[in-house]
Amino acid sequence: MTKRLLLKTLRLMGADPVDVLIEGGRITRIAGEIPAQDGDTVEQCAGAIALPGLVDAHAHLDKTLWGMPWHPHAQGKSLQQMIDTERSLRHELDMDAARQSARQVTLALSKGTTAIRSHVDIDTDHGLKMFEGVAETRARFADVMQIEIVAFPQSGMMIRPGTVELMDQALRDGADIVGGLDPCGIDRDPKGQLDAIFGLAEKHGKPVDIHLHEAGELGAFSLDMILDRTQALAMQGKVTVSHAFCLGMNDTARVNAQLDRIAALGVSLATTAPASRPVPSVAACRERGIAICAGNDGIRDTWTPYGNACMLERAMLVGLRNNFRADVEVAWALDTCTTDGARVMELDGYGLEVGCRADLVLVEVPALSEAVTQRPARRLVISGGQIVARDGETLGPWQSA
Amino acid sequence: MTKRLLLKTLRLMGADPVDVLIEGGRITRIAGEIPAQDGDTVEQCAGAIALPGLVDAHAHLDKTLWGMPWHPHAQGKSLQQMIDTERSLRHELDMDAARQSARQVTLALSKGTTAIRSHVDIDTDHGLKMFEGVAETRARFADVMQIEIVAFPQSGMMIRPGTVELMDQALRDGADIVGGLDPCGIDRDPKGQLDAIFGLAEKHGKPVDIHLHEAGELGAFSLDMILDRTQALAMQGKVTVSHAFCLGMNDTARVNAQLDRIAALGVSLATTAPASRPVPSVAACRERGIAICAGNDGIRDTWTPYGNACMLERAMLVGLRNNFRADVEVAWALDTCTTDGARVMELDGYGLEVGCRADLVLVEVPALSEAVTQRPARRLVISGGQIVARDGETLGPWQSA
Ligand SMILES: [Zn+2]
Ligand SMILES: [Zn+2]
Repeated sequence: MTKRLLLKTLRLMGADPVDVLIEGGRITRIAGEIPAQDGDTVEQCAGAIALPGLVDAHAHLDKTLWGMPWHPHAQGKSLQQMIDTERSLRHELDMDAARQSARQVTLALSKGTTAIRSHVDIDTDHGLKMFEGVAETRARFADVMQIEIVAFPQSGMMIRPGTVELMDQALRDGADIVGGLDPCGIDRDPKGQLDAIFGLAEKHGKPVDIHLHEAGELGAFSLDMILDRTQALAMQGKVTVSHAFCLGMNDTARVNAQLDRIAALGVSLATTAPASRPVPSVAACRERGIAICAGNDGIRDTWTPYGNACMLERAMLVGLRNNFRADVEVAWALDTCTTDGARVMELDGYGLEVGCRADLVLVEVPALSEAVTQRPARRLVISGGQIVARDGETLGPWQSA
Repeated sequence: MTKRLLLKTLRLMGADPVDVLIEGGRITRIAGEIPAQDGDTVEQCAGAIALPGLVDAHAHLDKTLWGMPWHPHAQGKSLQQMIDTERSLRHELDMDAARQSARQVTLALSKGTTAIRSHVDIDTDHGLKMFEGVAETRARFADVMQIEIVAFPQSGMMIRPGTVELMDQALRDGADIVGGLDPCGIDRDPKGQLDAIFGLAEKHGKPVDIHLHEAGELGAFSLDMILDRTQALAMQGKVTVSHAFCLGMNDTARVNAQLDRIAALGVSLATTAPASRPVPSVAACRERGIAICAGNDGIRDTWTPYGNACMLERAMLVGLRNNFRADVEVAWALDTCTTDGARVMELDGYGLEVGCRADLVLVEVPALSEAVTQRPARRLVISGGQIVARDGETLGPWQSA
């Protein structure tokens, strides 16, 4: 039998203190007091608040420059410029996707993240190199980090012939999800691109997650085309739209009608809650039962100097962007980084109940809101029943070079 | 003579390593190598980056609940509701302005802040109690924290008769600046309120700093009335408008014309770069030579659960709000929390040159941008030539109960 892990005196989501028993990677008992047995590993938690493992539902593990020398930023800021800058810098800089994704996973564990949906670039310059690197990391950390890989045509599909075939190959080789981006803005061929994406999804029986940066009516048009195909293929619960800036536009009648349709089709949204762009309202999504999850997107990469893989910081940014102040609202911001992410990733046994997979993050704060507003170093991170990080540092076996 | 403080191997704003000598509270020498003399206090800085002391140019030292039990938030979110909630909670909670402002100053020192402009509530419920408390803190920390006090009529001036007289008293008793807020939105009497504010400024020969939350054309109207009075009284360089959300409205022709007038009149702006409100563009201000400084505004108070007094986090939020990515742009975000704040507060001898007041913050990061994007605990904070914090902790003499 595996060793028992007994956590003493922790407050699940800020509730009254309990003891929690973990066996075989699962939570097997929660009670006011659970006596230790010989051979138990016992952790005194001193009233720390326990959150479920944090979920980064929109990441780019192949892009980060974490652990590499500072890369000065001076590139143009249009989407196309950032895409082109990155594709050429991948040659110039020593960007090894296996090494870099492992570094980000190590960092993410230290912050309490236990599940990541990562978009991974697939393009005709680099082929499947990034996909293979991230797949290597996924295998290496399989016990402690649940990673989904989105085959992501960052440089476009229709404008770079050969890309669809590469995505098809990645999906055969173990990519979990069909990616896409800006069918108008990047590919200039919304019908062609979306038919290709949903064709791959149908062929492989896999979900879809599409980056949609297009704003205003253009984005709303592309979004309608995505919803049409979701409906036609009966892909309820299998489609995520990332960013969806168009849902932040001022035309609330148009936005509300689209949100209603999104809810009816079981489409989910992923947001980074950027301060400088329009965003979908988390409250409006919750009202309709739409899952809206959060992600850090790229961290410290050729696109952006920001980011540290901390999903509590992302929760803060979600809260600030949505003007969430009340305790109940700050908890909604946290939900985007926990339960809603788990719902979108369809994580098995997610939560803080008996029978759930033992993914817990302990934070020493007096109130749940302060996990978001103050974000102290994580006291303890447990993933799949194993202690993976302590006092903000990932433990030995899961450190990366 | 006072003891010499010799800092070895630090990188001023990320430049090549130098040694820095501090005597009598000032920087007296900067050189490639400065030999230590007997009796010197020597600090090995190991290539850490030195920033000038951080400036929180828009704070509310009398409002924070830092160090007090968690206060659940459930209040209404209109400005008037938040004002009323706070005024009544000051009675219910044990909000001692001297104690609370000292706590925030201690915290701010640990984060590298060495100057604060604090608005302090003055109203007919509480009289000058908050002003007196913050003035006590200002005296107590005079050697290490430069505090300016704005006599701030948070609950309104015209709608609460007696307030103008209390402000007059505070200005006689040592308040540095005449405050104000939303002449239309709160006082419903823009002419009356602004004439009263500028009247107090003229009478006492003191500057003005007005909170202006009013958005769109309403805010632009109030702003024009402020600019009219600035011009009429020749108060160039003596007027700050805080927030100025109206300058974030979409009518760029209107906004640009107002920015040009603001520049011509030497009016400065203060921003918190909120993600959920329109904001003045930092780049547009810089282009015109307008000083735009940043502040944390209230931290962990009855208004908001957010905030930790860290001005590097504020610089990050300014950067994110303005979509600053290039190194030069991230440096602009940092400027709002350093040099622009010093310009607005008219701090004497601010900077990292020989002759400047020795206010330095050391951060262990490889590149200047990472001081903003990663914000590690401050390795060393020096204020007025004294070491006041180390490794993120404020040292004994400046700790608060
Ligand atoms: Zn992305
Ligand atoms: Zn304020």
